Amino acid sequence: MYDPLLQLDAATLLRQIDQLGQIGFDPQSGGRTRIAFSDAEKAGRDALLEWMRELELDIRIDQIGNIFGILPAGPSENSVADSLADSLTDSSALLPEPGLALMMGSHIDTVRQAGALDGCYGVLAGLAVLRAYRQAGRLPQRPLVVAAFSNEEGVRYQPDMMGSLVYAGGLDLALALDSRASDGSRLGDELEGIGYAGSMSPGAIVPREYLELHIEQGPVLEAEAKQIGVVENLQGISWQKITVHGCANHAGTTPTRLRHDAGYVAAACISFLREQIAAASGSTLATTGSLKLEPDVINVIPRKAVFTVDLRDPDEARLQAAEQQLNDFLADIAEREGVRIETERLVRFQPVKFDHDLCQRIETGAAQLGLSSMRMTSGAGHDAQMMARIAPAAMIFVPSRDGISHNPREHTDPHQLTDGAQLLLKVVQDCLAAH
Amino acid sequence: MYDPLLQLDAATLLRQIDQLGQIGFDPQSGGRTRIAFSDAEKAGRDALLEWMRELELDIRIDQIGNIFGILPAGPSENSVADSLADSLTDSSALLPEPGLALMMGSHIDTVRQAGALDGCYGVLAGLAVLRAYRQAGRLPQRPLVVAAFSNEEGVRYQPDMMGSLVYAGGLDLALALDSRASDGSRLGDELEGIGYAGSMSPGAIVPREYLELHIEQGPVLEAEAKQIGVVENLQGISWQKITVHGCANHAGTTPTRLRHDAGYVAAACISFLREQIAAASGSTLATTGSLKLEPDVINVIPRKAVFTVDLRDPDEARLQAAEQQLNDFLADIAEREGVRIETERLVRFQPVKFDHDLCQRIETGAAQLGLSSMRMTSGAGHDAQMMARIAPAAMIFVPSRDGISHNPREHTDPHQLTDGAQLLLKVVQDCLAAH
Repeated sequence: MYDPLLQLDAATLLRQIDQLGQIGFDPQSGGRTRIAFSDAEKAGRDALLEWMRELELDIRIDQIGNIFGILPAGPSENSVADSLADSLTDSSALLPEPGLALMMGSHIDTVRQAGALDGCYGVLAGLAVLRAYRQAGRLPQRPLVVAAFSNEEGVRYQPDMMGSLVYAGGLDLALALDSRASDGSRLGDELEGIGYAGSMSPGAIVPREYLELHIEQGPVLEAEAKQIGVVENLQGISWQKITVHGCANHAGTTPTRLRHDAGYVAAACISFLREQIAAASGSTLATTGSLKLEPDVINVIPRKAVFTVDLRDPDEARLQAAEQQLNDFLADIAEREGVRIETERLVRFQPVKFDHDLCQRIETGAAQLGLSSMRMTSGAGHDAQMMARIAPAAMIFVPSRDGISHNPREHTDPHQLTDGAQLLLKVVQDCLAAH
Repeated sequence: MYDPLLQLDAATLLRQIDQLGQIGFDPQSGGRTRIAFSDAEKAGRDALLEWMRELELDIRIDQIGNIFGILPAGPSENSVADSLADSLTDSSALLPEPGLALMMGSHIDTVRQAGALDGCYGVLAGLAVLRAYRQAGRLPQRPLVVAAFSNEEGVRYQPDMMGSLVYAGGLDLALALDSRASDGSRLGDELEGIGYAGSMSPGAIVPREYLELHIEQGPVLEAEAKQIGVVENLQGISWQKITVHGCANHAGTTPTRLRHDAGYVAAACISFLREQIAAASGSTLATTGSLKLEPDVINVIPRKAVFTVDLRDPDEARLQAAEQQLNDFLADIAEREGVRIETERLVRFQPVKFDHDLCQRIETGAAQLGLSSMRMTSGAGHDAQMMARIAPAAMIFVPSRDGISHNPREHTDPHQLTDGAQLLLKVVQDCLAAH
């Protein structure tokens, strides 16, 4: 069932991770910054395309800038394979038919001052799987596709996971292209500017299955001393921006009972989220990452507070309950403190359940390779959750040292990276052999 | 006892308040900005000097830039008055001897986008008292001095009330001149730059009494429907900057129990200040006006929070108790949340009790003018608290509409401004007649 000639070239994988990590690198911080559609991210895309060309993949780029590298199936399995050579010159020709290809992917854009692994590992490990076929002189039973989705991080243009969301039909292409950054720039123009506005329609390749290998970005695997996370579901995410309109007044002359202190209301809400919502639930996570006060002066009661609330839960009912508790709290405190509160929904994704069959194959594959594994929930959002809308999907996690990510100190040991890619290669072979 | 010829020229007072308020005016916001030692503040100083010259005052400027306009005593009361004309050309000559003059004063620097009254009202009302003598062709029984103290607001250079603090001997002149703004500029250089580094030693005129007329900057007089506030004491002020060092981590993948969330710790502290300290005390005020998170990103647990705490109480023991409660809270939560907390004291002033006798005269004077009054505590800091170190001092408040100050909407009705100045003129005459 497993072709002994199909061997992972770990050295090339690790070298490419390192090389991609040099693009946008800041020696000061030790991090790299490749915000989607920036010049640095274009340089990352260029490197990826170069590596895809070395593997003689059929490269396609869609209208939101998602990049696909396709390794065709061998002739015995696919009657149209003879004409695949044409597809390199005729971009409208011969995409894998719906439900045929196996797709692996992730993203290569980054947050500011990022590590080298988030996203990039999954894309380059996908290439490593295709490289194993090329180096063995084999073609797979079905087409294999490696995807690098646009703007997974959502730094300049929201929402995050935008490329895969558009690809899976969850966001209209025209709306996405019209997204504006805070500097007023339009996503579509920036995409044109870096030369990655492709012609393929998003969603044109519907895979039979989607696999995403990723670092955990959390501390669980390390804490549990497991080598592999079999990701069976993904938390629902609720992001809100909350604006409290109070009244600025002198800190020394305004009695407490006459205050409408927007900063206090924000603080009380953050305390409530932690002490009542997160503490009471076994599963709900609540985070305020951003908070700004106006006028932000030591002796002036804040007129205005703008803060974010990030709520997550793998269970939709519990997530909704947390949202409701927050709403009730805000209504109460607005009344009590005489302030006006606006809430704006920024992001809302329901929890995602990954494919049972694929999880089983990952778990079995890990055992066969002698890797310890555990079932787990992904706390972060990933392109896999979007792809799960159009195909059976699952994810493989490898450990993150100290659970740190979105940070120059993000780290996974090279042998752990190799283990994950070995498992991906094994699961791919298993899927191809199965049907 | 009261000279019927001494009449307040209300029209000139209101006109000068308006004219000074035009300097640094921003039509967009309706506020004016005359940060201490800026070009706009120099223009304000120039206008003040021009008005002092119109009254033929002996003008002195000290080494921290405090401005004094002196109206000499009449010959029957002061044997050296004959030679006062010399003092205009010989700046070392003939300052009022210690404990002789009656000083009125306040400041003419402003915060950003300020109203026209804070500080300026007290200085210009002082001039109006001297003008009453000039217009009546009278000289007072003792010298009268109007002071405009430097950098009361402390916007660029801390601490606030710096000019009067240096004047009263509470801050070394050389240290004050060496103060640095956040842009690196040195106070002494800026003071030289605007041409207001005078030669008089700070503290060279020690008055027999100091009176400061000021808008309340709070809502109490309006709420109590009183025309005059007899300010009998001034709250102690404790300013701290608190820095929480936590650990940045992914909002979706870090279990609550493994978080070191600097933003939550700040929020819990702000909630504690309001819900435990301010709510439990009848008198302690607690305010967090400024708070900044790092990295301030929606899905990243804050690594760092920097916030300010402004505690005030008219009673030193209660103020110390509040500081201690805050310290205990910070020690507990640092332990519990696994964060490191640094505190930096920015400002600490003990409560000030104003002179009993002067308060009595203000209260009696108000009654004689048919003005309703109440005893009260000043919530804000004022130059009078510094001058109280070297002379009996007291303050007169007039109402602030909606308690608003440090804001373009700062407002006191013209007739209320006139009432306050009438009372100041009356109290001055009363003081001069008494001794």
